[in-house]
Amino acid sequence: MKSIASAPGKVILVGEHFVVAGKPAIAMAVNLRARATVETVEGDRITIRSKELKIEESFSPESINTRSPLYPVYIAADLARRHISLEEGLDITITSELPPAAGMGSSAAVSVATAAAVIALRKKINRGIVSKIAFEAEKIVHGKPSGIDNTISTYGGAILYVKGKGFTRINLNLKDVALILADTGVPRSTGEMVAKVRKLKARYGSVLDPVYESAEILACEVAKALEMGDIKTIGELMNINHGLLSAIGVSTLELEQLVYMARNAGALGAKLTGAGGGGLIVALCHKKSLPNVEDALKKFSKRVYIANISKRGVIIEHKTFL
Amino acid sequence: MKSIASAPGKVILVGEHFVVAGKPAIAMAVNLRARATVETVEGDRITIRSKELKIEESFSPESINTRSPLYPVYIAADLARRHISLEEGLDITITSELPPAAGMGSSAAVSVATAAAVIALRKKINRGIVSKIAFEAEKIVHGKPSGIDNTISTYGGAILYVKGKGFTRINLNLKDVALILADTGVPRSTGEMVAKVRKLKARYGSVLDPVYESAEILACEVAKALEMGDIKTIGELMNINHGLLSAIGVSTLELEQLVYMARNAGALGAKLTGAGGGGLIVALCHKKSLPNVEDALKKFSKRVYIANISKRGVIIEHKTFL
Repeated sequence: MKSIASAPGKVILVGEHFVVAGKPAIAMAVNLRARATVETVEGDRITIRSKELKIEESFSPESINTRSPLYPVYIAADLARRHISLEEGLDITITSELPPAAGMGSSAAVSVATAAAVIALRKKINRGIVSKIAFEAEKIVHGKPSGIDNTISTYGGAILYVKGKGFTRINLNLKDVALILADTGVPRSTGEMVAKVRKLKARYGSVLDPVYESAEILACEVAKALEMGDIKTIGELMNINHGLLSAIGVSTLELEQLVYMARNAGALGAKLTGAGGGGLIVALCHKKSLPNVEDALKKFSKRVYIANISKRGVIIEHKTFL
Repeated sequence: MKSIASAPGKVILVGEHFVVAGKPAIAMAVNLRARATVETVEGDRITIRSKELKIEESFSPESINTRSPLYPVYIAADLARRHISLEEGLDITITSELPPAAGMGSSAAVSVATAAAVIALRKKINRGIVSKIAFEAEKIVHGKPSGIDNTISTYGGAILYVKGKGFTRINLNLKDVALILADTGVPRSTGEMVAKVRKLKARYGSVLDPVYESAEILACEVAKALEMGDIKTIGELMNINHGLLSAIGVSTLELEQLVYMARNAGALGAKLTGAGGGGLIVALCHKKSLPNVEDALKKFSKRVYIANISKRGVIIEHKTFL
């Protein structure tokens, strides 16, 4: 038996960092996908190879390398295998269009695609179970994941997330726009940036509390604008959100350069996305201005991704019973 | 009779734009000065020459060119002449270390120096009167001036200004720091930027109101830190203030580049100053890191000014009775 599943990555549209203090964040699925091809094999081994990481590793009950970068994928595959009560081994090939460690939910997309592909060998997939299994794998990758990445990759579309209160689905109503992402080439450390912001907020609480309040109202306004298809408002609010992120100290020269290059080339809005201190920017573009913005960003960034907004989460692309 | 007076320029340390909505701004005198050399001459003409503008113009009761860029200086000189009941003519030479039209209060410094030099021909200068006369000249230059520029140029030091509520003096207690300013080379239009911010605020009031609140608390915290000599706090609050200005849409690629170059080279804090959309950045530097920051900025800006904070306002530098 063989099955192939794919799952989208995500981008944080607004609210990163502020989410740590209980403010809402909006995550959106983008149509850069991870893909898992799964075949049953004799024995009980699960062999996983990643085309992008150029590694292959075999896991058996007697020999589990918990330090392997593929260990979380093994966990997803093994939990899914138990779910369908499969006793055979698995051969899994992973490919991904998502840049790794860029805050685009690459690891979750891989786990979601893997869990779905394994389950599809015997059952119709249940999204709740797929997301839950991927969440277990995410715990290995991130320690204390928010659950945003596995949720958005499983269901697609966009969600409003509030820490401790879970997810609200946003009914996207967007036409003729795409996201464009560009990498500063500067590696980011989420933990370091979160600690830096915590320190600044502890020192200047009275000044920054209203900034957090602004971020909260802003995220709710963006959610409304996404449902109404008001792309001008989304863009302008992204720009404001970038300023708030600059105020809490997570922007850099390289991020600002990409942000303003995108805006100056005609993007509706542009901001850093994710932890900051490096990493990526995201710009919202009308499709007619995409080539212009892409050209501008490519002059400065080696990795520019056009990312259509993906209403579809995980999908089973192929299934055969041999 | 001859006298020479000089008066300092200013920089807005924090609070620009937010001041329009009634929030406090802090202005600080910097030791880049305008200088007026005044001599009495026969007749009733007032002849003014500006070394920097390379123009000279004569004003007499019968012939007043109200369109001359020197007309505001004439108004300051003439009001000061009336104040001391002088009936002779005047020959006035203006020099200035301040970049014109850069938001550094160059026109006010020229008017303050001129009024003081004229009054000094016969009387001990009264700062209240000097400032008032310069304010009349400023009305010609700016239409509806806030009064910040003539006040800070007359008295020196730093002030906290709230629209409609006037000025509060800040007792500066700073050691071993200087300001460094760098020009983007992009001309700014204060009117345009104020209109842009007004429009954004009208559209996104609920999101931006807390940003204005943050700016208000921030300015008060900066005032305290200036009195306590807490330069680390001043720098960090300048950085936060820059983010708030980014949020209201008045930053640009060129401003961000200079801001981050200054910060990366060791400035305690750096932000755009004044209207934005172009114009200058200001950085607070410990004196030991000044050369480093200056070098970094000079790679990108043709006009970099080291500006010591000036506790002294207008001064009479020279006076002779021939």
